[in-house]
Amino acid sequence: MRKVEEFIRAHGIEVGDLVRIVKREGDEKITFEGIVMPPYELSPGETLTIKLDNGYNVGILIDAIEEVKVIKKASERPRMEFKEVLPKKEGLPNIRVLGTGGTIASRIDYKTGAVHPAFTAEELAKAVPEIFEIANITPELIMNILSEDMRPEYWRRLAEEVARALNEGEDGVVIAHGTDTMGYTAAALSFMLRGLTKPVVLVGAQRSSDRPSSDSAMNLTCAVKMAASDAAEVMVVMHGETADTYCLAHRGTKVRKMHTSRRDAFRSINDVPIARIWSDRIEFLRTDYRRRSEGEVRVDGRMEEKVAILKIYPGISGELFDFLVDNGYKGVVIEGTGLGHVPQDFIPHVKRAVEEGVAVCVTSQCLYGRVNLNVYSNGRKLLKARAIPCEDMLPETAYVKLMWVLGHTDDPDEVRRMMLTNYAGEITSYTRFDTFLG
Amino acid sequence: MRKVEEFIRAHGIEVGDLVRIVKREGDEKITFEGIVMPPYELSPGETLTIKLDNGYNVGILIDAIEEVKVIKKASERPRMEFKEVLPKKEGLPNIRVLGTGGTIASRIDYKTGAVHPAFTAEELAKAVPEIFEIANITPELIMNILSEDMRPEYWRRLAEEVARALNEGEDGVVIAHGTDTMGYTAAALSFMLRGLTKPVVLVGAQRSSDRPSSDSAMNLTCAVKMAASDAAEVMVVMHGETADTYCLAHRGTKVRKMHTSRRDAFRSINDVPIARIWSDRIEFLRTDYRRRSEGEVRVDGRMEEKVAILKIYPGISGELFDFLVDNGYKGVVIEGTGLGHVPQDFIPHVKRAVEEGVAVCVTSQCLYGRVNLNVYSNGRKLLKARAIPCEDMLPETAYVKLMWVLGHTDDPDEVRRMMLTNYAGEITSYTRFDTFLG
Repeated sequence: MRKVEEFIRAHGIEVGDLVRIVKREGDEKITFEGIVMPPYELSPGETLTIKLDNGYNVGILIDAIEEVKVIKKASERPRMEFKEVLPKKEGLPNIRVLGTGGTIASRIDYKTGAVHPAFTAEELAKAVPEIFEIANITPELIMNILSEDMRPEYWRRLAEEVARALNEGEDGVVIAHGTDTMGYTAAALSFMLRGLTKPVVLVGAQRSSDRPSSDSAMNLTCAVKMAASDAAEVMVVMHGETADTYCLAHRGTKVRKMHTSRRDAFRSINDVPIARIWSDRIEFLRTDYRRRSEGEVRVDGRMEEKVAILKIYPGISGELFDFLVDNGYKGVVIEGTGLGHVPQDFIPHVKRAVEEGVAVCVTSQCLYGRVNLNVYSNGRKLLKARAIPCEDMLPETAYVKLMWVLGHTDDPDEVRRMMLTNYAGEITSYTRFDTFLG
Repeated sequence: MRKVEEFIRAHGIEVGDLVRIVKREGDEKITFEGIVMPPYELSPGETLTIKLDNGYNVGILIDAIEEVKVIKKASERPRMEFKEVLPKKEGLPNIRVLGTGGTIASRIDYKTGAVHPAFTAEELAKAVPEIFEIANITPELIMNILSEDMRPEYWRRLAEEVARALNEGEDGVVIAHGTDTMGYTAAALSFMLRGLTKPVVLVGAQRSSDRPSSDSAMNLTCAVKMAASDAAEVMVVMHGETADTYCLAHRGTKVRKMHTSRRDAFRSINDVPIARIWSDRIEFLRTDYRRRSEGEVRVDGRMEEKVAILKIYPGISGELFDFLVDNGYKGVVIEGTGLGHVPQDFIPHVKRAVEEGVAVCVTSQCLYGRVNLNVYSNGRKLLKARAIPCEDMLPETAYVKLMWVLGHTDDPDEVRRMMLTNYAGEITSYTRFDTFLG
């Protein structure tokens, strides 16, 4: 049992109770009053979440709680509806909006000055009424984590929720997600969701929704439009420019967060975005996207988690690589220099890793462009050591893919074959020079 | 003694001898005839370099040599000049061109199809006669390595050669360098060269000089112009666009190779380039660069080499961090997600590292933008653990700087103070939104 359940049990409180909590914050004490929310199944379970009177949710670290007092039992209060669904309008597409946490679902905690994941998906949907004109929205909060805490088990859970929603008859799914690791999650869903027949759109915000410059309303609106579109792909929808001109729909395997704070931080790397979403229309930028069709979506979520990314830099010691091999890692994605290089004295470590059955994949820290191990002697030595050159795949996408591939096979030839098979647009078959830094 | 010296001694050959060598290449045997070149002091020493009749140099792996036969002893041949200096023209600036290896000084080996570092700096200079119209060029080959083999000891050596040249009266120095790690070397020189009063320009090529699309002649010409300019900075000069329109001079601490193969792969990140170099003029893009002046250049090359870069990704295990701490690393540069985040369960590992005296610096894998650990709770926990947020510094620059800082002090407060002191333009004091992806 997690801390939060133990705490709830030990204090005889129930979900839905109105409580007063005194929390220690350094030398200060802060008092919160609110309704106890159900603990999120996938959170680490170290915080108790309460909904304040102003609508915010606050996660309180259990170890910091000094006092808790029940003001009113849930049974004495009118029953709370955790899932508020509006009546469906005929003719509108049905879109499920899954909440996972992150800035798009967060507000600043004015007591501490920090941003907390706070809004439930319901609140979020209510905060952006436009989307109810576009679609019948069914919001559902499935986890509430900061995206830097995202990890493979959550990807699997998310893939299952998406498949469930689509197979239950939704026309598309939108996932509200923190931006830090949205690219990784988009890649994971791209590989895990097999036989995708409807759009799956990840959306986030770079500025929280209570700030005037927030991008969350426009991003969410564009995401819902894209989820109702013809593109049966896993996509990321975010601002295309700093101004509110349009959003871009990026392919989930080719997108990367390229700026810490700009609203147009997400960029397609080595590929053109799938579409531009204007206020009045969707402009497709390519024709080779997967079209909406009929059929059950499957989840193939097997992943080997003992995989690492290793960035190469001058002076890097092979001992880092050896550590991975000696500690049971099954795969390593190298972020090489230039065309995919490592220092000459690093190559024997790669060779040894491959000999011991570790899959070694090569990508480039340049991010843009394609690895090519045939040009220089050190590259050719890497090839000879049976490293797998990952074409123009992003290091992050190669990492997620390698976990997924190793979840299916540990045969080196099969790993190589699968890594070089294009499952979800992760390999661009020709060099898109025009997509560089733009 | 390295293999190459042992080989030369064992076979009774001398530098300058004309030899015939039979090399094993898989099942084939290849015969080379040429002059034995002096082994480069800083190469691993596993190859013998001979100059072929056509002017190319070829490095032959000693382990693959099956036969060697001296055709003519050096003493019977006219003496070779390894340093050919043209008579100085009055009125022209004096520029030293230091060769280190890399594509700009390489040719394709048509026998194997691979690119080898081959040209000496002399040959290189002769291949680009334009530069002799601009300056009195003194070429000097100081090492011959692929840039992915570059490492801190070579940076120090290079800094010393640069300082020697400038203090001997050169007006500027150009360094021909492989592009893979040119950004790292530029950052290292930026910190190591103290009291810089003249330009130091790194230059490379993305296509080797015997290919029609080569950028080496134009890049080298622009580099020489910049080395004769008013900017007393460490800079990288490379193509500004794919066409031969202009080159850009980037500040050494803010530049990054952003494409595996494009000629305009080098970009200033979070800052404007110093200048645009046209065929007929230098257009300065900013006024706040360091101007040429008088004075001795010092080398402060102390560096702590037990430093690592660790990229953060979903699912990363803290054991990687522990390994570094347990193996004597003195500093780690984290490439965090977004504003500089790590997963919540990673933070105790950072805390422990700092407690054991390891300097932990935080940068962002977004590359563009600035880290900010005050916005989200995980960031604030990192700050509390005494991680050092590196503003808008590139991860690569932060890595080089941390090595340099730790070469000077191990006092945590002093490390923090130095990391956050702007020594060479590595910290931009305000956010240059206009430099994003452009």
